[in-house]
Amino acid sequence: MSILGAIEAGGTKFVCGIGNEDGTVVERVSFPTTTPEETMGRVFEFFADKNVSAIGVGSFGPIDPVKGSPTYGSITTTPKPHWSNFNIVNALKERFPVPIGFDTDVNGAALGEYTWGAAQGLDSCLYITIGTGVGAGAVVSGELIHGLSHPEMGHIYVRRHPEDTYEGTCPYHGDCLEGLAAGPSLGKRWGVAGAELTPDHPAWEMEAYYLAQALMNYVLILSPQRIVMGGGVMKQEQLFPMIRKKLQELLAGYVQHPSLGDQIDEFIVPPGLGDNAGLCGALALAKLALAEEAN
Amino acid sequence: MSILGAIEAGGTKFVCGIGNEDGTVVERVSFPTTTPEETMGRVFEFFADKNVSAIGVGSFGPIDPVKGSPTYGSITTTPKPHWSNFNIVNALKERFPVPIGFDTDVNGAALGEYTWGAAQGLDSCLYITIGTGVGAGAVVSGELIHGLSHPEMGHIYVRRHPEDTYEGTCPYHGDCLEGLAAGPSLGKRWGVAGAELTPDHPAWEMEAYYLAQALMNYVLILSPQRIVMGGGVMKQEQLFPMIRKKLQELLAGYVQHPSLGDQIDEFIVPPGLGDNAGLCGALALAKLALAEEAN
Repeated sequence: MSILGAIEAGGTKFVCGIGNEDGTVVERVSFPTTTPEETMGRVFEFFADKNVSAIGVGSFGPIDPVKGSPTYGSITTTPKPHWSNFNIVNALKERFPVPIGFDTDVNGAALGEYTWGAAQGLDSCLYITIGTGVGAGAVVSGELIHGLSHPEMGHIYVRRHPEDTYEGTCPYHGDCLEGLAAGPSLGKRWGVAGAELTPDHPAWEMEAYYLAQALMNYVLILSPQRIVMGGGVMKQEQLFPMIRKKLQELLAGYVQHPSLGDQIDEFIVPPGLGDNAGLCGALALAKLALAEEAN
Repeated sequence: MSILGAIEAGGTKFVCGIGNEDGTVVERVSFPTTTPEETMGRVFEFFADKNVSAIGVGSFGPIDPVKGSPTYGSITTTPKPHWSNFNIVNALKERFPVPIGFDTDVNGAALGEYTWGAAQGLDSCLYITIGTGVGAGAVVSGELIHGLSHPEMGHIYVRRHPEDTYEGTCPYHGDCLEGLAAGPSLGKRWGVAGAELTPDHPAWEMEAYYLAQALMNYVLILSPQRIVMGGGVMKQEQLFPMIRKKLQELLAGYVQHPSLGDQIDEFIVPPGLGDNAGLCGALALAKLALAEEAN
């Protein structure tokens, strides 16, 4: 069995790991994201003696994941200093002449859940993370979604909750989904961090309202067979039943399917890979890159 | 070259045609949709002596397009009398032992535009029709979107225009996109049919606002390489530049791509197949069914 390399390239920290084709992570290391030179130096050091057959990168974005594009493999217009237009794939390829998989962190996580996690055995799934930001990736007919570039599902507009007066945190859109429902907006709206709000605080009803609207759009546009919800905010387990109920209310019986009816508890679920969703996602991208190279 | 059969199965009328694998329609007939027995009788009559190699059906919905499902091939929960649970594919298969393609009318139209129309040569596209209702279909990585069932993109929620007091026509959701932006809501909101409103009437600014919000969701969730807009309402050609401009305003530069910048005129376009989009879509479903049978 091949040894695969995985890089969860986040804006705050990088996690590197090695693992197997069955999704097992056997070693990992984590360090802060500083300059590309310093950070990639630590990546090279970690993988130097690992003899990996392929490396997968699940990256913060926006990125260019479109093969054949002149800027394929790079982070594009990030506000993060030094990283705009940095090409991770080219940097890795110079050091390690193996197949490199490259996609958004959330497309990676969707592929990980599809390959080894909560969506195993299905043809389609959607993974959404609600944490510092909101992002989602999706598998459709066994393929990750690409087109013009990659999905940016966290920035859709939702209707404002009638009692919400908070203006939203998104620097681009103000009160888009991420602006209203990501972790930081909870803290700014209520004056205390989300983790400190009690499970019966009205914050969660509002949060569930926004997330259910997002899920309604995803269901109506993509029709995924399962939705996996992760990230720090979803550690608030009381959100799951609230979101399921609100989604049913919003859909109003329009889409008839057991997964949206009495089987909704198996339709909207936490990650099967738990806190490994991100790193396993990168591992799944490595596995895919290896398989594509073989074809 | 094979002769292909095409059925545009609408709730008001059926259009049957025959055509070639290059998308040329050589004969067509149209009749009102009455009972399944009578309507399918006329379908059988039309195709009886045509010797088609495959038949494609682009159908009104909701339908079950998921192969392997026990109800595959049927219209499911339509309010249209007599058609609930009627299985079109089985009815056709009994008469014509050829491959039958079956999908929503809008998934068919998306495939038609992808195969022969405005999205030829791309990997992905989205087709949206705004007429009596609002519906959309999409091709992702060369495949039509299926999952739980089929997309129902016309029923997403959008934010209400601040000057809109109309409650919306959708029997399920009231003021979802279809409820606010389909042809009938134009007539009810303004007191005259949309076709009679002058091109500078404020109705079109409101209409463009709603449609641009829908397109924003589609772009952020699916990232299609082109969006094709058809249907009776889009005969109002002044809508195209208004929608393009509003979409750019809503995205606020978040997704950087020439198609969303100075090339947006080639990104949001009318159907390449014109008024044949529906029938050619069914023809494309026939072509696909024939190819899948050969594999």
